[in-house]
Amino acid sequence: MSEYSAKSLHDGLVAHGLILPTTVQGVFGRSAVFEDVLQRVADLITRMAKDDGAEVMLFPPVLERKTLERSGYLESFPHLAGSVFSFTGDDAQHKELCSRVHHGEPWADLQSMTDVVLIPAACYPLYPHLAGRLPKGGRTVDMQHWVFRHEPSPEPTRMQSFRVREFVRAGSPEEVVAWRDLWLERGLGMLRKLGLPAEADTASDPFFGRGGRMLAAGQREAKLKFEVLVPVISRENPTALCSFNYHQDHFGQPFGIQTEDGKVAHTACLGFGMERVVMALFRTHGYVPVEWPRAVREVLWP
Amino acid sequence: MSEYSAKSLHDGLVAHGLILPTTVQGVFGRSAVFEDVLQRVADLITRMAKDDGAEVMLFPPVLERKTLERSGYLESFPHLAGSVFSFTGDDAQHKELCSRVHHGEPWADLQSMTDVVLIPAACYPLYPHLAGRLPKGGRTVDMQHWVFRHEPSPEPTRMQSFRVREFVRAGSPEEVVAWRDLWLERGLGMLRKLGLPAEADTASDPFFGRGGRMLAAGQREAKLKFEVLVPVISRENPTALCSFNYHQDHFGQPFGIQTEDGKVAHTACLGFGMERVVMALFRTHGYVPVEWPRAVREVLWP
Repeated sequence: MSEYSAKSLHDGLVAHGLILPTTVQGVFGRSAVFEDVLQRVADLITRMAKDDGAEVMLFPPVLERKTLERSGYLESFPHLAGSVFSFTGDDAQHKELCSRVHHGEPWADLQSMTDVVLIPAACYPLYPHLAGRLPKGGRTVDMQHWVFRHEPSPEPTRMQSFRVREFVRAGSPEEVVAWRDLWLERGLGMLRKLGLPAEADTASDPFFGRGGRMLAAGQREAKLKFEVLVPVISRENPTALCSFNYHQDHFGQPFGIQTEDGKVAHTACLGFGMERVVMALFRTHGYVPVEWPRAVREVLWP
Repeated sequence: MSEYSAKSLHDGLVAHGLILPTTVQGVFGRSAVFEDVLQRVADLITRMAKDDGAEVMLFPPVLERKTLERSGYLESFPHLAGSVFSFTGDDAQHKELCSRVHHGEPWADLQSMTDVVLIPAACYPLYPHLAGRLPKGGRTVDMQHWVFRHEPSPEPTRMQSFRVREFVRAGSPEEVVAWRDLWLERGLGMLRKLGLPAEADTASDPFFGRGGRMLAAGQREAKLKFEVLVPVISRENPTALCSFNYHQDHFGQPFGIQTEDGKVAHTACLGFGMERVVMALFRTHGYVPVEWPRAVREVLWP
């Protein structure tokens, strides 16, 4: 392989027809080969989780705005959120809109905020549906969603729109932490079985602004977030392919989620960045899946 | 089955846990059973297309804004488009944003337009990638995308966010029209094999405003749009499950797509509304797939 850099990965993916770039950073198409590998990784995760009794749900890429407002996301990550606006004008305003678009002039002021936003993290649409008392032992849910982050970047691994396979556990603090620890081991094991040099580490989220630095330090100190990392665009700064987040009562409180005995439920989630896992495979084993090591192929195409 | 209405379908889907409503109309979760049926329908379409040599591509639910602006969509359907806004302020503005959210006050003016919009129809992200001369015989592309339409409605079949399996053909007018006609027969045949009383009809798009009525009449008269319809929420007004659109040079012109011999290429697309096909199956055969007629099950679970 060539040297590890954002540019060499981007150019390799493009040259092999695996991604189709647009003029917007972090927004690109995926080829049939890219999608086949992604689906195989998703199937592998499904096999790993098969005895967990997780409920499968799927939500669209848009979320009710009210859920975002209740969740605390805008306090922590306002710069990453995407809200959906639409045109609600009359014929005259439409004429104005068409003229502006035709002349390449701004038309933002002809748009109004709607009741939906883009999903910022795969687990957000779920929390309103967990409201009330959980059954004994809590609940585990399995989802794969398109999420949005407004962070245009030339790094192919940092996308504005990408898929996260996410599991959420809601229950008592003990149940939730034990489950998070189990999946940290599973995630590490899975990526290593795919021939990826994966390592776990504590981590923090990209909280906004001056106050954000303190939040990040607190999160790291309390070991609330772990990541499993693999070198993809840099050997020195490996890329997080999965993250494991213990939310304590951050969602249980605003969304009214309670344990069987009426306490505020704790939650944790873990997410695999699906495109990142696929890119790590291409970076590590080459851009042509039929040429990958037999041991890796046998795991993905059993 | 109970009487055909939007309410009875909605209530049936909810009672059987097939959809998970939110407080926003047209935005809801899907259950594992719903998703299994949807995947089986997708597989059936794949089998139907297997000898066509279609290229498979996948784009995220967001699209570069420039593509929407070039496409003519805002001229025809400004009211359905969704544009993505984000926060680009500083610490002081963030404090203001948090205060507004906390007090339930509007915060639209603290958002700025980004370079992306939501995909309005599954084929839009493709056109910039077809620019230039097509190979002899043109190109056919197979995609399934999440699309957005800002039209909140209590009808479960009218969603704000849903998946369309779409094929696009670019080539000479003769190639494109012959292909559209072939798929109209295929779509009808597929839905009838699934036990659905499908009928084809000419149709028109929901063009905006006063001028829109004339555009719709012209489209219908020139037979540019066909739909395959099945009763889902009404026996009298069946629901379009697939649509077949001949664009003539509507996309070939602005996106610079040319046939092998240098003429402006024509395009056509056909789309299956995946959730609508699934809902038509539940409405027609009942809410429990294991109890569906054996002939239908054998088509979906071969």
